[in-house]
Amino acid sequence: MNTRFYNAKILRTKPNQRFEIEEGELWVQGNRISYLGKSPERKVREETTWDREIDAKGNLLMPGFKNAHTHSGMTFLRSLADDLPLQEWLFQQIFPKEAQLVPEDLYWLTALANLEYLTSGITTQFDMYFFQEEVAKACVDMGFRLVQTSGLNNFGGSIAELEEKYLKFNEYHELSSYFLGFHAEYTTSKELMEGVASLVQKYKAPLYVHNSETKQEVEDCKKRYGLSPTQFLDRLGMYDYGGGGYHCVWFNDTDINIFAHKGLSAVTNPGSNAKLASGIAPIKKMLKAGVNIAIGTDGPASNNCLDMWKEMFLVSSLAKLKDMDAAVVDGEQVLYMATAGGAKAMGLGEADCLEIGKLADLILIDLNQPNMQPINHITKNLVYSGSKQNVKLTMVNGKILYEENRFFTNLDPAEIYRKANEIVKRMK
Amino acid sequence: MNTRFYNAKILRTKPNQRFEIEEGELWVQGNRISYLGKSPERKVREETTWDREIDAKGNLLMPGFKNAHTHSGMTFLRSLADDLPLQEWLFQQIFPKEAQLVPEDLYWLTALANLEYLTSGITTQFDMYFFQEEVAKACVDMGFRLVQTSGLNNFGGSIAELEEKYLKFNEYHELSSYFLGFHAEYTTSKELMEGVASLVQKYKAPLYVHNSETKQEVEDCKKRYGLSPTQFLDRLGMYDYGGGGYHCVWFNDTDINIFAHKGLSAVTNPGSNAKLASGIAPIKKMLKAGVNIAIGTDGPASNNCLDMWKEMFLVSSLAKLKDMDAAVVDGEQVLYMATAGGAKAMGLGEADCLEIGKLADLILIDLNQPNMQPINHITKNLVYSGSKQNVKLTMVNGKILYEENRFFTNLDPAEIYRKANEIVKRMK
Repeated sequence: MNTRFYNAKILRTKPNQRFEIEEGELWVQGNRISYLGKSPERKVREETTWDREIDAKGNLLMPGFKNAHTHSGMTFLRSLADDLPLQEWLFQQIFPKEAQLVPEDLYWLTALANLEYLTSGITTQFDMYFFQEEVAKACVDMGFRLVQTSGLNNFGGSIAELEEKYLKFNEYHELSSYFLGFHAEYTTSKELMEGVASLVQKYKAPLYVHNSETKQEVEDCKKRYGLSPTQFLDRLGMYDYGGGGYHCVWFNDTDINIFAHKGLSAVTNPGSNAKLASGIAPIKKMLKAGVNIAIGTDGPASNNCLDMWKEMFLVSSLAKLKDMDAAVVDGEQVLYMATAGGAKAMGLGEADCLEIGKLADLILIDLNQPNMQPINHITKNLVYSGSKQNVKLTMVNGKILYEENRFFTNLDPAEIYRKANEIVKRMK
Repeated sequence: MNTRFYNAKILRTKPNQRFEIEEGELWVQGNRISYLGKSPERKVREETTWDREIDAKGNLLMPGFKNAHTHSGMTFLRSLADDLPLQEWLFQQIFPKEAQLVPEDLYWLTALANLEYLTSGITTQFDMYFFQEEVAKACVDMGFRLVQTSGLNNFGGSIAELEEKYLKFNEYHELSSYFLGFHAEYTTSKELMEGVASLVQKYKAPLYVHNSETKQEVEDCKKRYGLSPTQFLDRLGMYDYGGGGYHCVWFNDTDINIFAHKGLSAVTNPGSNAKLASGIAPIKKMLKAGVNIAIGTDGPASNNCLDMWKEMFLVSSLAKLKDMDAAVVDGEQVLYMATAGGAKAMGLGEADCLEIGKLADLILIDLNQPNMQPINHITKNLVYSGSKQNVKLTMVNGKILYEENRFFTNLDPAEIYRKANEIVKRMK
């Protein structure tokens, strides 16, 4: 599939984590960006056979968003139990329903999430959920890029299984990769965590885990081990080869320093942290310390949507509220987190920005919508005013999977909705 | 214009501020809802000549959103000066640019805002800005419903002018109405405020004003007058006949009681209050006291978008963060604020809900989008997962002004964008 975009604004990511916008063309040949710059001579253009030549009409090509933490299969729980206290939500609503899932369900529930990602301009998800074979199959069938990690804990999974998945899903398909990981300190025994740490050491591999999502979690960890989750995991050797944490809301200065010095990524999930009243992550402090920050939607049970536009506004505005300072955590910093920061966290160095040779995971943003007009400051306005409605096209691995509100993923959306509703009905 | 919607889910507003969803038809004849209920006999349907018969395909008809506080003409300042401290933003960026506006600008800048409102399912705006004749003309030309109030303060306007506008814009057109008002206590002399209060008494009329947006504002008012803004305005007799305040972030219990006992409306603007780091309004306390709450986007300079979906999520999630309690201010309460609560604040009792005889200000919401699937709890999910992308159709006063991403407002969007960009360029 060869696609030529012309008359485009092109978002370039600069080394200082800022952006520039160039005008010109971007070519995709196979699954990679093959050219980017001024419009070449007609003769040069005609050397390639184009499947599509798309007039971008002055709209913006930019890297696709990286959803750096999610539980995609929780789509079936979306709006099933809103406005409940966290413990009641988790133990009386979420866990009993999850126990009824069968593997095939995850194929359809993940497919539903993938559709939503595409509408939001998200080109990769970093998923932690059950039945990972079906999750991978759904993504590969749809052409969607997937990074997974394990939700191993006391109630499911084993070290042997984790190792098997780690080896399997890193070789499964070019769209699939896998990180070592487990659910969280508060759901996992010390013995099991030591087993995970031994895999980290064996493979010299990064590790991801829920970390300091709630105040309670941190306090309980301190009671159990005398250390914060970050310090405890670090002491076990979990963080010797990189990786990071999901949420990172209740980080203290020591935790932030560990993340900074070990090159770990903090994945922030402001929509979920707000809706579940977990708190506001110390984004300003983490930025200052040089921690790589990525953004995730978390699962649709706790958000309820899978929308990077919403998350971006929240990252910045909650940071401003936390410090009561309108100048902290500016729009471009957030745009970086949602693209290159996420790519770094997810091991997607080949899909982090628009450059020749990079993977063609990109989106076309409609600037000719009232919320983007007049044109004053495009990059910041993406963060403060952008929405799913501005996503004209989403391309993953060189293939257009979403364009002008229509899906091109091999799966019929109506069939996906029908299956998701059947799963919900079956559980009632 | 007669329009028949069939195969629809219809959102009914209940007396207890909750909602029910019925399946059936909704008819619009002229600018009013003429029927609502089960599908009538074909014979009955054929008694009317329909301009449009729309198969809603199981999607949701609901009342249009009421944007209860905005400065629409600030579209030209959108993303001009993000991430600045409030005082610098206001005095070095906003005021100098506003001083360069000429009346015709407001026609185009308001038109641009109206397009954005339509994409978000907003059917009425409650505007406070300059050159109100041009604002009204833009809205009437486009068929958009407008409520205005005055931004009178020490730097512009007079009591005579306020009275003239109050009389004029309440008789101007069926789409136009006007409340007494002024900018804010902190920008207006006591003498001028006493003049406004005398008009309130003369016309026994409600009054609207920015109230307790920032901590500084409240502290300064206490220094000046020994009272909070609400208590001071109340003492002047401003609130004797209803009305309310915009923002209401730094309300104390006495302020809340005054609002409750006098039947005043608190218009909350969480997007702006977050982005400008003003604070989080005490929504839970105000609800408990029985205060009518409406939702506004504030102006696009401080938000940056005019999107009720974003505001609804923020109202609930910021309230949860404020109290660190996921159970407070639930989704349906927020949906009520965005519809009937806003209508009450804006004097739109004839457009507050879907009932026979009410004005046909309504929207059609696409439930067949991934973010609304599967169907678990529609009303709450609108608040937590809905977006502009779900707005299939926006009807104001019986006319379809937006449908399937296209505008039908008599004005060409490309022309509006061009004019808005010209205004920005002229000021550079």
